[in-house]
Amino acid sequence: MVDVRYDVLGIGNAIVDVLVPAEDAFLVEHGLVKEGMTLIDADRAEQLYAIMGTGTESSGGSAANTVAGVAALGCRVCFVGKVRDDQLGNIFARDIRAVGVDFHSAPATEGPPTARCLIIVTPDAKRTMNTFLGACVELGPQDVDEELIAASAITYLEGYLWDPPGAKVAFIKAMGAARAAGRKVALSLSDGFCVDRHRGEFLDLVQHHVDILFANEQEITSLYQTDSFDTALQAVRGQCEIAALTRSEKGAVIVAGDETHVVDAWPVDHVIDTTGAGDLYAAGFLTGLSQGRGLPECAAMAGICAAEVISHMGARPEADLQALMKKNFG
Amino acid sequence: MVDVRYDVLGIGNAIVDVLVPAEDAFLVEHGLVKEGMTLIDADRAEQLYAIMGTGTESSGGSAANTVAGVAALGCRVCFVGKVRDDQLGNIFARDIRAVGVDFHSAPATEGPPTARCLIIVTPDAKRTMNTFLGACVELGPQDVDEELIAASAITYLEGYLWDPPGAKVAFIKAMGAARAAGRKVALSLSDGFCVDRHRGEFLDLVQHHVDILFANEQEITSLYQTDSFDTALQAVRGQCEIAALTRSEKGAVIVAGDETHVVDAWPVDHVIDTTGAGDLYAAGFLTGLSQGRGLPECAAMAGICAAEVISHMGARPEADLQALMKKNFG
Repeated sequence: MVDVRYDVLGIGNAIVDVLVPAEDAFLVEHGLVKEGMTLIDADRAEQLYAIMGTGTESSGGSAANTVAGVAALGCRVCFVGKVRDDQLGNIFARDIRAVGVDFHSAPATEGPPTARCLIIVTPDAKRTMNTFLGACVELGPQDVDEELIAASAITYLEGYLWDPPGAKVAFIKAMGAARAAGRKVALSLSDGFCVDRHRGEFLDLVQHHVDILFANEQEITSLYQTDSFDTALQAVRGQCEIAALTRSEKGAVIVAGDETHVVDAWPVDHVIDTTGAGDLYAAGFLTGLSQGRGLPECAAMAGICAAEVISHMGARPEADLQALMKKNFG
Repeated sequence: MVDVRYDVLGIGNAIVDVLVPAEDAFLVEHGLVKEGMTLIDADRAEQLYAIMGTGTESSGGSAANTVAGVAALGCRVCFVGKVRDDQLGNIFARDIRAVGVDFHSAPATEGPPTARCLIIVTPDAKRTMNTFLGACVELGPQDVDEELIAASAITYLEGYLWDPPGAKVAFIKAMGAARAAGRKVALSLSDGFCVDRHRGEFLDLVQHHVDILFANEQEITSLYQTDSFDTALQAVRGQCEIAALTRSEKGAVIVAGDETHVVDAWPVDHVIDTTGAGDLYAAGFLTGLSQGRGLPECAAMAGICAAEVISHMGARPEADLQALMKKNFG
């Protein structure tokens, strides 16, 4: 087996977030599905952008947020994703490298511009996302370096990759390379509506190709088409090595073989913006695994990271995560 | 094996409850430990009774509440507990028989009067209990009919029985008789402070003598001397056949061998008085088991019963529980 060069290699849509606070009425007025992630085209993106209030731009993307978190926690990470050679693409690349993430993916020199996600944050701190995938649709198997995958202890994939067709092929190639090299594959189900779009394939992935699964309650109940969290919990047991099921303020349940851990949410004084909660949860958890910690400690680290990111606007950590870990775990 | 005459036989302290609403300041002023169950003597009982406002008297006692619930759900039940041949004793016996519970225990003809529990219900619906055990201290092995135990599918015991010394001997005799007859033994840990008083013995009971354990979060974390619910969960797994761990509005976790169920709390519009929540939870759960239902359904029935009893003052069900079950489970 080749030496491990990266603790975590993340593959995902490379997206710049535009965060705008707005009232619930705004969602209703513009037909937006609250708490969902809706794919939009270039025209709709332009139209929404025009009617939205002033926003904050920052690098985002689900798996990118996760690897940024893992880097902030001191692990060696790499990100694979497609931007265009435009201004937003430059911002994305600069930001992700600035937090210590290796980012080698060549930008597209033609085709649609860098992806953006228009995120409306309502006063209850919930986020409603509208994603124009842009250059992400250019991601393909040619962007997946099998040697890099083989040199990464965990390859982490976001379910959102199932939306752009070429990315899906890249996803499958990466998964195969990781498995062939005896490495672990981690997957986030990303979004309940995303699960709805690709249920059959996701069920197959979880059962046959994934070692570590991240899903929130909406996603896991959507996957198994049930209203009951417990029914979904029973269904996922044994399907993959570890399933980390998050339930917002209800905490999380970790299932691994016959083992089950019920872990409370980390307390948060004021929830400001839940964007990135799941992404940073995964970051803390994967870091714990990389450090060889037990599942309860991985879950605690995950909860701390999620709590940090929902305490402020934006999907990337602001506090010193390593210091937070040191304080709680020594 | 003899025929089953009772689905559940409960043994517990036979107590008349005196419920009084009061502000938190009342607890502080009189040095009462909020949410706890404090044992008091006759003098203190008289003194507290004098300073408390007007109360509502009703038959109570933890295991007695449970068997009353099981009877209301249509199962065959019996209660063993000691009252005195006084007015409160007559009330207790009349009430428990009125709800369909067989109650054969002979009243004491001398010694302290029938037990009472002065329950202060604060505006947050929490209950603080002060129990004068009275005649309960007269319960002893002579009150345990081994043939009756052998004819009961489940013998259900409350941890509070560990407080009066004679009752403890009765408890052990009943447990032995149930096990010898191939029947199941169920135990409620009753109260975190009660667990504190008897931890060593309770640990031994759970590990070696109990099939079905009921404990709330405070009790189970006290038993295993940890702050972490998950740590307690891991500790209790494998110690007994089934552990039903309740967490108030956080729902419950059921552990049985390698099986774990995470079940949400049944929704309640207004929580009025939490007295009896654990007792009725056990009632619903034991009824489900008696009816041969699976653990998720037992837990759902338990949650519905607990939700009913906390929706009004008092520790005995007021709604038609059988109708509630029919509505939800057909």
